[in-house]
Amino acid sequence: MKVAVLGYGTVGVGVYEMLKKAEGLEAGPVLVRPGKKDADFKVCDLNEIVADPSVDAVAEVMGGVEPAFSYAMAAIRAGKHFVTSNKALVAARGVELFHAANEQGVAFLFSAACGGGVPFLHNLARAVKTDEILSVGGILNGTTNFMLDRMQSSGMDYADALKQAQQLGYAEADPTADVTGLDALRKIMLACAVAWGVLPQEGLLNEGIDSLSAADVADFMARGRTCRLIASGCRAADGRIAAYVEPVLLSAGEAECAVLKNFNLARYEGKNAGSIAMIGQGAGRWPTASAVLRDLSGIAEGETAMFPADVCNGAADNAAESHAYYVRLPSACRGRLPAAEVLSDTDGVLRLITEGMSVAAMHAAAKALRAEGCGVFFAALREG
Amino acid sequence: MKVAVLGYGTVGVGVYEMLKKAEGLEAGPVLVRPGKKDADFKVCDLNEIVADPSVDAVAEVMGGVEPAFSYAMAAIRAGKHFVTSNKALVAARGVELFHAANEQGVAFLFSAACGGGVPFLHNLARAVKTDEILSVGGILNGTTNFMLDRMQSSGMDYADALKQAQQLGYAEADPTADVTGLDALRKIMLACAVAWGVLPQEGLLNEGIDSLSAADVADFMARGRTCRLIASGCRAADGRIAAYVEPVLLSAGEAECAVLKNFNLARYEGKNAGSIAMIGQGAGRWPTASAVLRDLSGIAEGETAMFPADVCNGAADNAAESHAYYVRLPSACRGRLPAAEVLSDTDGVLRLITEGMSVAAMHAAAKALRAEGCGVFFAALREG
Repeated sequence: MKVAVLGYGTVGVGVYEMLKKAEGLEAGPVLVRPGKKDADFKVCDLNEIVADPSVDAVAEVMGGVEPAFSYAMAAIRAGKHFVTSNKALVAARGVELFHAANEQGVAFLFSAACGGGVPFLHNLARAVKTDEILSVGGILNGTTNFMLDRMQSSGMDYADALKQAQQLGYAEADPTADVTGLDALRKIMLACAVAWGVLPQEGLLNEGIDSLSAADVADFMARGRTCRLIASGCRAADGRIAAYVEPVLLSAGEAECAVLKNFNLARYEGKNAGSIAMIGQGAGRWPTASAVLRDLSGIAEGETAMFPADVCNGAADNAAESHAYYVRLPSACRGRLPAAEVLSDTDGVLRLITEGMSVAAMHAAAKALRAEGCGVFFAALREG
Repeated sequence: MKVAVLGYGTVGVGVYEMLKKAEGLEAGPVLVRPGKKDADFKVCDLNEIVADPSVDAVAEVMGGVEPAFSYAMAAIRAGKHFVTSNKALVAARGVELFHAANEQGVAFLFSAACGGGVPFLHNLARAVKTDEILSVGGILNGTTNFMLDRMQSSGMDYADALKQAQQLGYAEADPTADVTGLDALRKIMLACAVAWGVLPQEGLLNEGIDSLSAADVADFMARGRTCRLIASGCRAADGRIAAYVEPVLLSAGEAECAVLKNFNLARYEGKNAGSIAMIGQGAGRWPTASAVLRDLSGIAEGETAMFPADVCNGAADNAAESHAYYVRLPSACRGRLPAAEVLSDTDGVLRLITEGMSVAAMHAAAKALRAEGCGVFFAALREG
C-alpha cells in the first residue's frame, strides 16, 4: 500500500521514515509548502497526490482545520484511504469526513489524534463492538502534564514550567490550546464520538491549568493531593453525554499520579471489561508516527473506521455530573460558592472545599468570578 | 458468525451470555462434561460441534493442555476459527495450533490468555507489524498481585493473604501455578512469541512469592520499596531472548505500584512507540469474556493471527540480563552471594543487596541454597 504524506514537520518526517522501513507499506510523495520542495519525493501541489493512481492512502499530519479539511476531502473523493493525527480537524469536521469516506468505501482512521502513541481510540472502537462503554477519559495533554509534574516535583512556578516545556519542544510558541485544556477537550470529543456515536460540538467545558500558582501546588500537596489535568466523558442513563476538561486533585497511589513528564494516560470503562487504562507517550515524532503507522497497517488488514456507522454531531450536557471542588479565590468572594469546608483564609486568599456541585455550575461560577476580576483556581476532588 | 463454546465455568458462562447480546455474533452450542447437559444449548460430544456446518468459530475456555489441545485441533481441522483464554494450552502447543490454523485458513487468537481483560497481545501483535519490540513484561498474575497488595497495605501474612484470595475466588484450591510464578511465566512466553516469533520452551526461570514473609514486607517497605511479581521478556542484540518471572522491588511512584488488588499491568516497549503500559482486570468472568469477545469480533473483521508467520518453539537465555537483588537468607549463608551492601544481620537473619548478578545466577544460587535447607527470599531492584 503506497502512502502519501501531507506535511513534513516533526511528525511528517517520522511517518515518512517509518514508511520506508515498514513491511507491506510504501512511502509515496510528501506534500510540502510552496518553495519547500528540495527533494524528488516532495511535491507542492496536492493534485500530484490525489491524481496519482499509485497512491492508495494519504496520511495528514499538518494540523489545523484548513486547508487540512479540503485536502482530506479531495483525497477521500479520489478514493484514497485517509489517516490523520490532527485532532482539531477531526473534532471539527470528523463526521463529514467519516461519511465521505464511507460513501467512497475508503478507510478513515485517526488513532494519533488522541493519546499520541497510545493505541487508545483503536481499542475503544474495538471494545464498542462487544461491550457497553460507560466512560472515557484521562490525561490527554502531554504539555500540561509535563508542566504539572515540574511544578509538583520541583516547586517550579507556572511561568518557568511553561518556559521549560517550550524549550524542550513540548509546548508551542502559542501554548493557549494546551494550557486552557482545549487540546485535551478536542481529544475527549473524539473519544465520545467513538464510544457513543455523538461528536459533541456544543455544551463543552474546558478549564486548564493557566490559573495554577506555585502557592496552590504547595497547598494541595501538603494535603496529600496530586493535580492532573483530566479530560472526562460519560453517558448518563438517559443518553446525555457529559464532556469536559478540568484539573483534578487525586489521592496518592492512583495510576494517574504515576504518569510523569509528558506522558498520557487514556482510560475507558466497559460494562464487561471494567476499567482499561493505557499509558504512553502522548506526543513526539516517533510515538505519534508509530500510531499513524499502526493505522495504516490496520487498513492493509481491513480496518476501515473508528466511528460507529451512525455517528453524528451533537451537544454535551455537563449539568448532571457532580463533584466536590477544591477552590482558591479572593477572601472577598466568600459566600459565592457552597462551602462544605473552609481550608484557610489568610492574607486575602480563601481556600475551600465545595459541597457537591455540577461541573456546569462550577465552571459557570468561575467564569462569573473572573468576569468580576477575581482570580480563581479550581480542581475536582476524586477519591481512588 | 456462530460461535460454539468449550467449557461452561466462570468464563464460559460469561462468553455465552455476551455472545447472546453481541452484534454480528451468535451463540452456538456449549460443550459441557458428560452428565452436565441440563439445557438444550449444551452438548456433551465435541462432534456435535465440529460436525455442525453452522458453527463458524470455537471459543475454548476449559483450561489445561488436554483435552483442550485435541479439541482445538479437531475444531481447526474442521475449518472453525479458534479462540482461547487458555495460557497453559497456548504456552505448550501454541506453535502447532498456529500452523494448523494457517493451513486451514482459519483464525487463531488468544488475547484472554495474557492479561485477561487487558487487550495486550492484540496490541503487541499489531505493533510488531510496524515497530521493533524491545521488551515485554509486567504484572501478569492477578492472584499474586492481590496477595502482595494485601500483605503490603494491611500487614497480612502470606497464609492469610492466600486464604483471603481463595475465599474471594481469586486463587484456585491448588494455588501452585499462581504463587510460584508459573502462570505469569506462561503469559510472558506468549508475549515473547508474539513479539519475536519464538515461543521459549526451555531455559525459562520463575520465582514466585511463596517465600515471602510478613517480616520481609515490613523490611523493604521501611526502605520505601513496593514489591510486585513481574514477568519480563527482552531480546538482546544477538537475538537471544530472556524470559523470566521474579519479584521486583520498585520505587514509589512507578505505575506498577498503582496496580492494586487483582489488576494486571502489561507493557511493551517499541523502538518508535516507546513504552506502552495497559492496566486492567487480569481475570474474572466478565473481563476475560470481554477479551474473548473482542477476539471473535476481530475475526469477523478479518483478524486472523497473533503470532508472526514464522513462529517456532525455542529456548530462553537468562544469563545476559543482570540486576542487583535484595536477598533475605540465613546469617550462616553469608558469603554465598556477592554482597554490595549488608542491610541487617540480626537473630540469624541476613538481609543484603547483591552486586549486579545475572538472572540465571541469582535463580541458580537460590535453588542451591534451598537444596541445602536454607530459606531464601529474593527480589530484583529496579529504579524508575
